[in-house]
Amino acid sequence: MADFPDILPPFLIFLGDVPDALAAKTGQGIVDWRRERVAGQMRLTGCGADLGVPELGIGEACRLGAKTFVIGAVNPGGTLPDAWVASIVAALEAGMDVASGMHARLGAVEAIATAAASTGRRLHDVRHSTRTFPTGNGKRRSGRRVLTVGTDCSIGKKYTALAVERELHRRDVAAHFRATGQTGILIAGSGVAIDAVVADFISGAVETLTPNNHPEHWDVIEGQGSLFHPSFAGVSLALLHGAQPDAFIVCHEPTRRTMRNVATPIADVDDVIEATIRHGRLTNPGIRCVGLAIDTSRLADDEAERILAEHAARFHLPVCDPIRTGVAPLVDELLAP
Amino acid sequence: MADFPDILPPFLIFLGDVPDALAAKTGQGIVDWRRERVAGQMRLTGCGADLGVPELGIGEACRLGAKTFVIGAVNPGGTLPDAWVASIVAALEAGMDVASGMHARLGAVEAIATAAASTGRRLHDVRHSTRTFPTGNGKRRSGRRVLTVGTDCSIGKKYTALAVERELHRRDVAAHFRATGQTGILIAGSGVAIDAVVADFISGAVETLTPNNHPEHWDVIEGQGSLFHPSFAGVSLALLHGAQPDAFIVCHEPTRRTMRNVATPIADVDDVIEATIRHGRLTNPGIRCVGLAIDTSRLADDEAERILAEHAARFHLPVCDPIRTGVAPLVDELLAP
Repeated sequence: MADFPDILPPFLIFLGDVPDALAAKTGQGIVDWRRERVAGQMRLTGCGADLGVPELGIGEACRLGAKTFVIGAVNPGGTLPDAWVASIVAALEAGMDVASGMHARLGAVEAIATAAASTGRRLHDVRHSTRTFPTGNGKRRSGRRVLTVGTDCSIGKKYTALAVERELHRRDVAAHFRATGQTGILIAGSGVAIDAVVADFISGAVETLTPNNHPEHWDVIEGQGSLFHPSFAGVSLALLHGAQPDAFIVCHEPTRRTMRNVATPIADVDDVIEATIRHGRLTNPGIRCVGLAIDTSRLADDEAERILAEHAARFHLPVCDPIRTGVAPLVDELLAP
Repeated sequence: MADFPDILPPFLIFLGDVPDALAAKTGQGIVDWRRERVAGQMRLTGCGADLGVPELGIGEACRLGAKTFVIGAVNPGGTLPDAWVASIVAALEAGMDVASGMHARLGAVEAIATAAASTGRRLHDVRHSTRTFPTGNGKRRSGRRVLTVGTDCSIGKKYTALAVERELHRRDVAAHFRATGQTGILIAGSGVAIDAVVADFISGAVETLTPNNHPEHWDVIEGQGSLFHPSFAGVSLALLHGAQPDAFIVCHEPTRRTMRNVATPIADVDDVIEATIRHGRLTNPGIRCVGLAIDTSRLADDEAERILAEHAARFHLPVCDPIRTGVAPLVDELLAP
């Protein structure tokens, strides 16, 4: 997409010396969803994570054609260890771009900024937005769009969108996952971290992210936050208006009681469906809910089955757990005439 | 308010050489609502606007104690004319701070940046946010709050809020107008241009803007956009959640057909009331509508009267035109036990 310069594959995924797999979630996401873009991983002594891809040094990765050194792990304590800085500088000097979803900008570290300037390599700080966007205009665009929404933050919206994209591809339907958060951008290789966009331009940024397309093409748009989360509902509403989705999927986690980082109770699925339709109609009068994606990972098999069946009966909609059951029924409904 | 360094009065309001009163709306707003902060105006040859306050040069204004040189007019074509730059530099060198609501940052002009640095004076670019804010937490705060909301942008939300603050003061009720846009900030001398805040922190910025206060104190919060405007609804929703208002006033203009700068029809008053209550309940379960502020300036007297009466009968709420009738009935309802 011309508007969003791609993070060029193949990637050498850098895991530093993080202690476990949890700290390497971003790298794992890239391997899970875009294995074909990954040349290998690079780990420092003591690293406890392993993505199961070839172990490469910087020189070797370059010889294999690696174009971008992707930070695939969380830097401990938010600060960039010296050994990480040295690896990033070495990657730049070997001719790779560097991509990061960290809070701190790569260019804020002098050694990295200097190496990038002298080598002419690009630094992709995907958590930060360097582009300017127009304000949203609300005009209908061609092509089809599905958005994942949620009863809370961090409730499976990215995972569900990626699973739906994969299922559409399996059926030979033209589709693109559109990333709206830093991990999604590193997985997709492009996108906009919309929570980093200046308030006035959020819906405009989403309009730019999901432009006109041919009539049968699906944009599968990664949702953010929740219309009922007191910290982020504004972002969710602007995303809904800018996305102008034809269809949406509600992501939910049935054991969660309060929303992430606040004391507010988790939203009801009913309220999320109703508010999404009510507000979504402003930019797409045909918006409809095509199903629920429920994270049942905290439940035993029989309890999970019961919860999925209960929700299906209550909402008369396909209900899946993307990990346990796959998303085929959601895509059936999405493609139903 | 310690969090929002004040723009220090008295002001010398600079109008440049703008051709008419419309281009000097910001200066006029300051004179209308905060006359006591204004030492005088400064105009260049050819200026067609006049605020009706003493005409002062920079030296004279300083001798009278003026602390801030406020750009009270819109710079033509968005660029800063040389004569304006020269006046701004002279004001800095004479010892004044400079405040501007223009899109372009004052400090982006080299001569201004140099003069500010060498004199140690402050540049207030109120359209830009230089502060960082926490994310919103949705916790209830002490004190009372009223928010103006609208069926569109630019529909009287700032004016209504200022009129309500004035009416509360007339009744000796402790109250503060809380500005959320650049003109409001220049009038109030402090505030946050929330449409310039990074998306993730909008509701947090509003929580910071309207902190805990004593139980009988009213924050009168300037609304932005509309929950039904496809460009800015996200900002409006985050503002509503962060403001956690006890009460709100709906601003409307009955002759407008489409929303500002887009083809979307103007929202219905009913929908705005319903959506504001529905979403406002998330952070303040007691939220209620205390009336309508209708801009009838495009209507003849009898037609205006008819429209106000019609809306009052339909909504069973006080309905005013803040300019034609004043806002006393809205404040009666606001203070009703």
